[in-house]
Amino acid sequence: MEFPAIEPPQEQLREQAALRHAELAKPVGSLGRLEELGGWLAACQGSCPPRPPSRARVVIFAGDHGVAHAGVSAYPPQVTGQMVATFLSGGAAVNVLAAVVGASVRVVDMAVDQEAEDAFPPPVGRHKVRRSSGRIDREDALSAEETEHALTAGREIADEEIDGGADLLLPGEMGIGNTTPAAVLVAALTGAEPVAVVGRGSGIDDAGWMRKTAVIRDALRRARPAERDPVALLRSVGGADLAALVGFLGQAAARRTPVILDGLVVGAAALLAEEASSGAKAWWVAGHRSAEPAHRLVLERLGLDPLLDLDLRLGEGTGAVAAVPLVQMAAHLLAGMSSSADAGIAMSDGGLDAGRTVG
Amino acid sequence: MEFPAIEPPQEQLREQAALRHAELAKPVGSLGRLEELGGWLAACQGSCPPRPPSRARVVIFAGDHGVAHAGVSAYPPQVTGQMVATFLSGGAAVNVLAAVVGASVRVVDMAVDQEAEDAFPPPVGRHKVRRSSGRIDREDALSAEETEHALTAGREIADEEIDGGADLLLPGEMGIGNTTPAAVLVAALTGAEPVAVVGRGSGIDDAGWMRKTAVIRDALRRARPAERDPVALLRSVGGADLAALVGFLGQAAARRTPVILDGLVVGAAALLAEEASSGAKAWWVAGHRSAEPAHRLVLERLGLDPLLDLDLRLGEGTGAVAAVPLVQMAAHLLAGMSSSADAGIAMSDGGLDAGRTVG
Repeated sequence: MEFPAIEPPQEQLREQAALRHAELAKPVGSLGRLEELGGWLAACQGSCPPRPPSRARVVIFAGDHGVAHAGVSAYPPQVTGQMVATFLSGGAAVNVLAAVVGASVRVVDMAVDQEAEDAFPPPVGRHKVRRSSGRIDREDALSAEETEHALTAGREIADEEIDGGADLLLPGEMGIGNTTPAAVLVAALTGAEPVAVVGRGSGIDDAGWMRKTAVIRDALRRARPAERDPVALLRSVGGADLAALVGFLGQAAARRTPVILDGLVVGAAALLAEEASSGAKAWWVAGHRSAEPAHRLVLERLGLDPLLDLDLRLGEGTGAVAAVPLVQMAAHLLAGMSSSADAGIAMSDGGLDAGRTVG
Repeated sequence: MEFPAIEPPQEQLREQAALRHAELAKPVGSLGRLEELGGWLAACQGSCPPRPPSRARVVIFAGDHGVAHAGVSAYPPQVTGQMVATFLSGGAAVNVLAAVVGASVRVVDMAVDQEAEDAFPPPVGRHKVRRSSGRIDREDALSAEETEHALTAGREIADEEIDGGADLLLPGEMGIGNTTPAAVLVAALTGAEPVAVVGRGSGIDDAGWMRKTAVIRDALRRARPAERDPVALLRSVGGADLAALVGFLGQAAARRTPVILDGLVVGAAALLAEEASSGAKAWWVAGHRSAEPAHRLVLERLGLDPLLDLDLRLGEGTGAVAAVPLVQMAAHLLAGMSSSADAGIAMSDGGLDAGRTVG
């Protein structure tokens, strides 16, 4: 399978943004990470000042996982479909946050385990690969064909969104049990031990934690031969939703579209997407640091410093959506602030009272 | 001088918000600090769900400081007045951020060092106390009368804003040299050494840093007899802008109005306001952690965990304004999300596939 080649964002625009920031009516560098973020957006857009994103789009990849039947989640598998229905009715956390920041929400059913008569409206299931991915401690998550199908679906979804005008993508996910394959993928790619990647997910108790650790250990053993081959990893210990996320993230980068990453599950897909398409990470910022321990490994490996650290552990894309206002602010600062010269701000070079007016 | 007594926010509303969060369509606690923040707002408003703040108001307290002539800033003192003009024309960082979050901006001249013919439009200077506060390494910042005047002005400004409908207050400040008195106040109240509170402010070099440390040391020696007396501290080593901030913060708490704190200067005033009116801090959240070292001491002493940590060191209220969207999100989540029961979400108690539907 071919992965897209990634061109870098335009570094000269990042430099232009830094020069612009140095001219604005404030001490140089005093807006810290908001300045960095403005430079990133300028480089992604090839435009300084960058346009404040006006069509931010959440895309939630939903799918069930066979491991949910192994007692690795505090919730039963049918919650995946129930939450998809909640996204469609607008009552989930991500819907509320998206409304606050002016983003729209799409949900795609990649592998929800659901009877045909309960199916969601057709657009939701258009890219569906199968009912639930395999139980990864015992069997492959997907066949080779399904893996290819899911990766392709993710790319097509990215194309649909970008062609539809999205200027900031916010991938999210929903799937009972999905932090288990995500933790396995992170461990496989970073060499971490199962105990270093296992987390409480939606809120398991100690017994659940032990079951989850054992499942991660067994799946990781199955994953060994596939290490460092993103497609083989997705097939053996991933899932259709994860594969679609990988395809989506790689294609978004290939299409030069900025992305805010969410928590562990999106982060695991991002690690794979960067592995498959080196340089993709330059198109991403990390929205937040999740409470899941494996997410720290993701951020370290990608070298991304999260914008928020609010102990969120919900997924759905909520940690990405919560960071959207910071991106908006970063763009507006470059576009809307006066320069020191225009504002008639005096400067001095030694800190003494020997000001001179610039401009 | 009498300081207002502070009633606590309504704890039963915070509990009601926590109960509501536990019913919403998501794992319990999975929205982390956004849940906490919603509980705080509910307790402040006495209403659950809380109303999303619709009239957030930035109030910038501007004033000059004699120590600016001691080479403690990278900018000359006249920048204070130039920046006030920039706030009025809408070109400063805080104006841009306020527009993004839907807040309005007011600036008050407490002690800008400016010729009468250069005065700002009358409303800006209505509460002005004097031209520049005294050079605190050598003399008192204010007379007893001026201190009283500035404290009263801050209270009146809080009353004006709250009576005018503000439902979330975002105090900010502007004053070349003002991190020096702020650092002295923090050191006086926490017992920290000058080197532990001195920071780069607007961006001083090493020589400036040494001058600033010496000024802090000398001012701190002058402050010793006044330790633990907020009014005496403001008179000897504070300033008119800082005293007004103290009055403002205490009155906002007395008037049961939530406040987002900004960085070091507002934080130093908050330490004094809490000292003067115990319990005021329950009405505040910390918008961010600034890059100034003394700000960490402020946050520790107040027991406030900042919402953002973005290396901002600008002041103007920018670190408070940047956190407004998180407060809006927290309010909307409590008001807008479906409950698990309404969404038909299945629950289970052991993490195994033995779900039962609630509701």
